[in-house]
Amino acid sequence: MLTRVKSAVAGFMGGIMAGGSSGSGGNTGSELPLKFPYMRPDFLGLSPDEIECSADHIARPILILKETRRLPWATGYAEVINAGKSALNEDQACCEVVVARRRPMSYCPPSTPSKTPTAKRRNSLPNGEGLGLHMEHSRLGEESEGLVFHYWALFDGHAGSGAAVVASRLLQHHIACQLQAVIEILRNLASPPPTVLGEEPDCNPYLQGNTPHRALTRAASLRGATGAPGSPCSTPPPPRFFTEKKIQHESLVIGAIENAFKEMDAQIEREKQVFNITGGCTALTVVYLLGKLFVGNAGDSRAIIIRNNEIIPMSTEFTPESERQRLQFLGFMQPHLLGNEFTHLEFPRRVQRKEVGKRMLYRDFTMNGWAYKTIEDEDLKFPLIYVCVELLSPAEMLNALKKIFLKNPNQFVFQARVLATIGVTRGLGDHDLKVHDSNIFIKPFLSCCPEVKVYNLMHYEHGADDVLVMGTDGLWDVLSNQEVAEAVTTFLANCDPDDLHRYTMAAQDLVMRARGVLRDRGWRITNERLGSGDDISVFIIPLMYGNRQP
Amino acid sequence: MLTRVKSAVAGFMGGIMAGGSSGSGGNTGSELPLKFPYMRPDFLGLSPDEIECSADHIARPILILKETRRLPWATGYAEVINAGKSALNEDQACCEVVVARRRPMSYCPPSTPSKTPTAKRRNSLPNGEGLGLHMEHSRLGEESEGLVFHYWALFDGHAGSGAAVVASRLLQHHIACQLQAVIEILRNLASPPPTVLGEEPDCNPYLQGNTPHRALTRAASLRGATGAPGSPCSTPPPPRFFTEKKIQHESLVIGAIENAFKEMDAQIEREKQVFNITGGCTALTVVYLLGKLFVGNAGDSRAIIIRNNEIIPMSTEFTPESERQRLQFLGFMQPHLLGNEFTHLEFPRRVQRKEVGKRMLYRDFTMNGWAYKTIEDEDLKFPLIYVCVELLSPAEMLNALKKIFLKNPNQFVFQARVLATIGVTRGLGDHDLKVHDSNIFIKPFLSCCPEVKVYNLMHYEHGADDVLVMGTDGLWDVLSNQEVAEAVTTFLANCDPDDLHRYTMAAQDLVMRARGVLRDRGWRITNERLGSGDDISVFIIPLMYGNRQP
Repeated sequence: MLTRVKSAVAGFMGGIMAGGSSGSGGNTGSELPLKFPYMRPDFLGLSPDEIECSADHIARPILILKETRRLPWATGYAEVINAGKSALNEDQACCEVVVARRRPMSYCPPSTPSKTPTAKRRNSLPNGEGLGLHMEHSRLGEESEGLVFHYWALFDGHAGSGAAVVASRLLQHHIACQLQAVIEILRNLASPPPTVLGEEPDCNPYLQGNTPHRALTRAASLRGATGAPGSPCSTPPPPRFFTEKKIQHESLVIGAIENAFKEMDAQIEREKQVFNITGGCTALTVVYLLGKLFVGNAGDSRAIIIRNNEIIPMSTEFTPESERQRLQFLGFMQPHLLGNEFTHLEFPRRVQRKEVGKRMLYRDFTMNGWAYKTIEDEDLKFPLIYVCVELLSPAEMLNALKKIFLKNPNQFVFQARVLATIGVTRGLGDHDLKVHDSNIFIKPFLSCCPEVKVYNLMHYEHGADDVLVMGTDGLWDVLSNQEVAEAVTTFLANCDPDDLHRYTMAAQDLVMRARGVLRDRGWRITNERLGSGDDISVFIIPLMYGNRQP
Repeated sequence: MLTRVKSAVAGFMGGIMAGGSSGSGGNTGSELPLKFPYMRPDFLGLSPDEIECSADHIARPILILKETRRLPWATGYAEVINAGKSALNEDQACCEVVVARRRPMSYCPPSTPSKTPTAKRRNSLPNGEGLGLHMEHSRLGEESEGLVFHYWALFDGHAGSGAAVVASRLLQHHIACQLQAVIEILRNLASPPPTVLGEEPDCNPYLQGNTPHRALTRAASLRGATGAPGSPCSTPPPPRFFTEKKIQHESLVIGAIENAFKEMDAQIEREKQVFNITGGCTALTVVYLLGKLFVGNAGDSRAIIIRNNEIIPMSTEFTPESERQRLQFLGFMQPHLLGNEFTHLEFPRRVQRKEVGKRMLYRDFTMNGWAYKTIEDEDLKFPLIYVCVELLSPAEMLNALKKIFLKNPNQFVFQARVLATIGVTRGLGDHDLKVHDSNIFIKPFLSCCPEVKVYNLMHYEHGADDVLVMGTDGLWDVLSNQEVAEAVTTFLANCDPDDLHRYTMAAQDLVMRARGVLRDRGWRITNERLGSGDDISVFIIPLMYGNRQP
């Protein structure tokens, strides 16, 4: 029985895999060399043969970190390939301890990044052993050659694996590169970051500090419009007292991560000229520095902290629905980006020609509510953000049905696309992605900028079961935060607390729960819900090791 | 002693009042007639003489609702004029029960609002008595002629009182006008709002409803880029199944309020051609309809609910700081709006020419963190958003000092301005406000769109001390949410629960606490903190009457 089902599913999958997921507007680039070969994460230590065997869309073996090659902080990891939507596993993962070396300030300016970042990777994976845990890190903390940070990242590729592979190899170096410019400042926590580098504080002519008696602000007229601020460029200006914002060290790390994402994206764009870098990818990164976790997210992966049975969301997903107003505003401001084929307005469904002149519900970038408007010809254009279903093959129908049933009814939502093309609105790559059969580029609507959230590890004592869970959407499409938290907490409670492999076992358990088992009617998880047919990747990071860092 | 202080303060104030608050780029418009005369709220029932007497910047008498003229729900109200920053009290308030009459759908389309809205004001203030409470409302609930809603609003004017006066007279009619188009739909809560008006549901060719087996979505490729959605304008399209969003009745009310703000703003713009409508104003409105409170806010006023000692924020303030990224993004996208005099980048302080070539902290619209950049000539431009102090007169110095000391040290912040001109980023009016001595308009950076939050009164049982507090920034600049909640809760606990005047007395108490008393060194509140020198207006709305509505 199972064999028959397997064979039927394989038939479906063959359709997709032959049709290929490469049908995006991406650079087919078959004549250009790859920037990096397709791979699975270094730390899995797989041979080429093993990598090939792992890409079995029928068996979907769950790959886990081998016990002897442990990651920093005893981090656990597991992954599984999709059920056939793409030939390769388009998720990628990275985990490293990175040293940003001291460099001249001008070495790596935000706008002109180094093409050969020299941030040194301290763990010598894939060939060497992973770093030992606590003692090794203590030594790193005393590292005199630069700044050490821990780094975990997940990338979820689409329309090809190229961008995800490149980002998983290089993004950490862009972060190191950005941090190089502020190493001295971050090592000197006793003083706030200077506003200007290389300037004596006493030379500053402005009133510094924001103690009330040293800095004055203009009160009565500030709230409203004021009469005479003076044209900013007119001379001579009347006497002014300036206030100066005090920036925290934490903000420099946030800024470094934000700019590193932008630099990574710019590098992909540049190198597409000479390498075959297909598609785009989401990026979810965790940086441990200054006793804090900095969680940067651009896309629809997710990170949560589970602490003493409490769930703390550490990221927000960026999708056409969550970023609707940003996208509509851009389309409104720059209508040429819509190529005269799309409207920035949203309607509950597609407008039909015979409805012109009638009144239909709509909303624009200024609205969260809905109102009626008289339909005009202009409204017949395709909506910028739209939920559209187009069934092209039995395999796609299977996947569509999966997508529908895999969530419980309360959580059921349809996934919207931008410009009928893409269902995620932040990430790296996608530079030449176009609307099918048009010259309309998607990229202007996508943002490579992450949202960075900060968690101060030093504010809490963490037990062995307090963890940060990072997962690609293959996990979260199927399991809620609550389900993940319960699964992890239950699993860890039944493990030997001294077994460092417990976090990988818990990650494996999560991937298993999200993938499910292959039954008559496809991959099934608990309560007969459909399992995820997507690539699934999970890190589980115990937080107690962070408390032990210098 | 007091006399001497009074006289000194009066001297300061004279300077301001003579210099005038009209120094904005506003239409001086002395030759145009006023749209409405300056006034205090109708429901205060003041005579012209009383209005003149109330505008005493030295005594600052607190005006309260007279007991015999009660507002709906026994709403309490109190206000006080500023300490001299403008000759008139630029706050305005409105409270009414409004009937939106049934009208043809096309009567009041969003883009072409009626210039003579016919929404009928049911309470006949200022000449009649306020509506009685419960019984009268029950009758209104059975109103067959249209839709009844309760309405409370605060407007905080700047650069003149014109926009605030106009908005306080007309915004409720714009809301009524928007609701007219959906009266039938809102009265029929049994059916969801139709997507298209006047269409038989069965004629809809689309798959309706979002039950999983009736609507399909395309799964595997949706998340990423997809191959062949088909050009939206190409023909013939492949077979498609569309999903249709189900819109809630609540969303129609939100949309009506959002569009009403836009229409109000457009009307001010139009009528400035023929009337003298000075300045701009913030707007905070509360609409009670369908058993829910809809709190719409554009500006820096604030509404909170105090329920069983819990504080529920019902609005967000819109300021250059809170809207930095929106404003910077607009300046980046449309640099001509910055008139070659401003930069969209933010720096911790103004850049000096001698710092060109050095590295300074900055952030752009993509960043929440900070990083260093090499200063270029371009960065010498005035920042789009900036905290700048410019002391022009002793009166301004007094006000500046007040602003500094009036908050406790933990809350102390400097207030930033957009384009060196205005400290609030949403509201109505300001259409011809310009940067001083330039042709750079401020309006493109201001939004008239409110954020609307919803509170379902039916979800809770409310006691006599559960209230919604609305206040202009004169209140919240000085008192925290916690302080306001404690003051109100304590005050109400000491009142006779059957005294309907208790909410006005509590409002008076709040205004008193925020204004303080005049001492040697200005207006003082508890702990020697400086009181607010701004106009202060406060509504206190008991929520239990909402539970009694039909």
